Amino acid sequence: MNVERDRLHRALNPKTVVVVGDKGPNYQWLSNMSEFTGQLYSVQLDEKEIPGIEEKGIQNFKGLMEVPGDVDLVVCAVPRQVTPFIVADAVKKGVGGVAMFTSGFVETGEELGAQLQEKIVGLAREGGLPLVGPNCMGVYNRRLGVKFTNNQEQGEGGEISVISQSGTHGIGITIGAQNLGLAVTRTISIGNAAVLNEADYLEYLRDDPDTSVIVMYLEGVRDGRRFAKLLREVTRVKPVIIWRGGRTKAGAKAAASHTASLASDDAIWDALLRQAGAISADSLEEALDALQCIVRLPRSSKRGLALIAMTGGQSVAITDQFEKGGFEVPELQQKSYDRLGEFFITIGGSFRNPFDAASTIGRETDNLQKILDILADDANIEGVALEMQARDFDQGTERVDGQVKLVQQYRERTGQPVVCLMPEGSPGQMGPEVVTAARYYVAKQGVPVFPSFARGAQALGRAVRYWQWRDETGT
Amino acid sequence: MNVERDRLHRALNPKTVVVVGDKGPNYQWLSNMSEFTGQLYSVQLDEKEIPGIEEKGIQNFKGLMEVPGDVDLVVCAVPRQVTPFIVADAVKKGVGGVAMFTSGFVETGEELGAQLQEKIVGLAREGGLPLVGPNCMGVYNRRLGVKFTNNQEQGEGGEISVISQSGTHGIGITIGAQNLGLAVTRTISIGNAAVLNEADYLEYLRDDPDTSVIVMYLEGVRDGRRFAKLLREVTRVKPVIIWRGGRTKAGAKAAASHTASLASDDAIWDALLRQAGAISADSLEEALDALQCIVRLPRSSKRGLALIAMTGGQSVAITDQFEKGGFEVPELQQKSYDRLGEFFITIGGSFRNPFDAASTIGRETDNLQKILDILADDANIEGVALEMQARDFDQGTERVDGQVKLVQQYRERTGQPVVCLMPEGSPGQMGPEVVTAARYYVAKQGVPVFPSFARGAQALGRAVRYWQWRDETGT
Repeated sequence: MNVERDRLHRALNPKTVVVVGDKGPNYQWLSNMSEFTGQLYSVQLDEKEIPGIEEKGIQNFKGLMEVPGDVDLVVCAVPRQVTPFIVADAVKKGVGGVAMFTSGFVETGEELGAQLQEKIVGLAREGGLPLVGPNCMGVYNRRLGVKFTNNQEQGEGGEISVISQSGTHGIGITIGAQNLGLAVTRTISIGNAAVLNEADYLEYLRDDPDTSVIVMYLEGVRDGRRFAKLLREVTRVKPVIIWRGGRTKAGAKAAASHTASLASDDAIWDALLRQAGAISADSLEEALDALQCIVRLPRSSKRGLALIAMTGGQSVAITDQFEKGGFEVPELQQKSYDRLGEFFITIGGSFRNPFDAASTIGRETDNLQKILDILADDANIEGVALEMQARDFDQGTERVDGQVKLVQQYRERTGQPVVCLMPEGSPGQMGPEVVTAARYYVAKQGVPVFPSFARGAQALGRAVRYWQWRDETGT
Repeated sequence: MNVERDRLHRALNPKTVVVVGDKGPNYQWLSNMSEFTGQLYSVQLDEKEIPGIEEKGIQNFKGLMEVPGDVDLVVCAVPRQVTPFIVADAVKKGVGGVAMFTSGFVETGEELGAQLQEKIVGLAREGGLPLVGPNCMGVYNRRLGVKFTNNQEQGEGGEISVISQSGTHGIGITIGAQNLGLAVTRTISIGNAAVLNEADYLEYLRDDPDTSVIVMYLEGVRDGRRFAKLLREVTRVKPVIIWRGGRTKAGAKAAASHTASLASDDAIWDALLRQAGAISADSLEEALDALQCIVRLPRSSKRGLALIAMTGGQSVAITDQFEKGGFEVPELQQKSYDRLGEFFITIGGSFRNPFDAASTIGRETDNLQKILDILADDANIEGVALEMQARDFDQGTERVDGQVKLVQQYRERTGQPVVCLMPEGSPGQMGPEVVTAARYYVAKQGVPVFPSFARGAQALGRAVRYWQWRDETGT
């Protein structure tokens, strides 16, 4: 690391934040900090902006040097030409670190941008200053209420940390996780990663007691060897999901204008991530889907699943997708078939595995309980995928609550993973908006749930492959 | 075909429908027909059921032979042991055809089921009776209001026809299309396909003037050679999207208990569909996604796209997915760059293609219009993929309407395809329910729209490959 860990720690867990150069009418950065639990100041020279800042009850200074006491984090939103002066002041004042929102550097491909970046990087390195960015959204800290967008939550808890080379994707992962009831404890938007790079942040999170799962969005790696070595270490202790942007030729070109990342060979990346035991994702959906399985499910590398669908057509579809995702759909033990035979409706239904269970489960959950009890006793079954219907969800959550409770009981009793599927196109389903609402409701109860069989199968497949790698490495 | 086309035509376009064996309290089949424009009768022997039927204002008879006049379609919902008597009566009366909902035949794997199926198939064949099913949901005809589930629409129009071996997936495709504003004119749920098989129905739709696009869900093919030959013919005139269920080993086993379909080798299927110019889909989502592009977009086999995203991170993600989907992201002509340079905000934005356009487009659509005008004049661009934000959608549709109008104008002016993407995780987006509502709203305005870049890219890829095949076959 170019800088001291303690200093980076101050920047990522600030007691005092100074926003430099925020502008009205919205004062975006100061507004983002409205739930910050520490001391917030503003630095703004422009006389036209000062009254608006002071109206928000925030004390403004004309320069960073005038701010009293220690400053842990400077959020810098000044025009790019001004950035060298702010960085110089930050070094002089000995602040913890700077999160530089300002863009217009090497990513523009312009000479001026490159010169300015060289200037601020030189100043920061010389001063041992942790500079996050530039061309980034900076730092989110859930517990302290340090935010870079309003809808990031403030509060206790959270075990997921995010490192993102894109501000958008940092927000997408954070808010996407929140929507699913998964709390993100910190997000670092690293932009051009000019002073601190992805390996520096990964090293920090490795040692961070508040982080037990890591999600990364990366467009390039500055120091491949160090990153690979670190990654191999971290994945033995904490799952790391990596979504890599700019994989394709045109995508890599786009990444160059986005964060000035250099293309690496796609095959090399793939090998690196695989050998290091990282969980690869190719999109926001895939990253969040895998995250649900990693955070919500017990550790399991087993592949023999019971598949419970609500119609015959869905029983075929769910089987295709889970087999494609690397799972097996074993026959049950004879004693299970005997017990199922006592109550299961087989005309227009089937229980050989997959299950076509709508007629049997109907509108009550009693028979679902019976089925899950039988599966829990069956030695051939190592996990369950359940199609869950949003039936009646617009009338209340009772029916869904009943199913969620049974799923949680099964999980506790067996220690096996259970994933739920709520595809839009299922006949018992309501309109797409109701299904979406029901799905996020279920996710918030702590049950991994997916809008298609394919996504559920792929997500569980990613988790199972990761835990298998942990088994193989004896970690 | 085992039966006369005219007779099948009567069954699929009935003036008189008789439901045999419907039961209370819901009288599902009679209720499904509540918007039927023709004459509806019931046949029910059970004295307990008759009052409930007559209360619905439907005339009941004790036997099919007692029903006055010609009968075009019999919907049969009796217990399986009774089915031979109904089929025998249907033959005697010379009805158009029978849609047999009753299940419990070969798909159960039981001896009794197999015997019963052999019996009814023998009777139907001998009598030249078009028997749809058994073990199916039967026939939907939009114009006539013949339905097999309540939420199928009744009305004019519709150019899409569906053949589905699964009732669920027949409903899923029909309702899924409706939700997207795509009207299905007829759906045939073919179940065990015991008398009429998939080739018979395909042949019918080939010659059906109300059908211009066909979607099929198939678990097996009864007569591979005839089906392949027919398919090659049909795809030269009408696009055929085929979702095949039971592709995997376990999936094929599930298909056997579902519709008694025999597994065919997956590689043979793939080759058959590819050589025949069918559009392959692997799930409901993929089938509906492809359908949107086929129905809504102008014919185009070109691959040079302008990609417009709303942030830098999304510009990388959209590019990765569309390149992966087989598209190119060409540089624009210099004159376009010159024109864009006049107004485009390049700090925190980019217009080289892909576009990172949020700052430029902002909350107004004027600059989107300028960008689309420039693209329309650019010889390198053959289509557009546009990230559309659900921003403010909970406040009203105005902003979205403005963007939809511009997309439609571009399409009319250039004859090029435009697809829209509304991923949930975009920062300008609202919560998932609002995004879902916005997405279906946009779809209903006639613009193909997808919940992820990957799905949009794959859907447009399927359409473009199909039209390329049409170009190559000179059709």
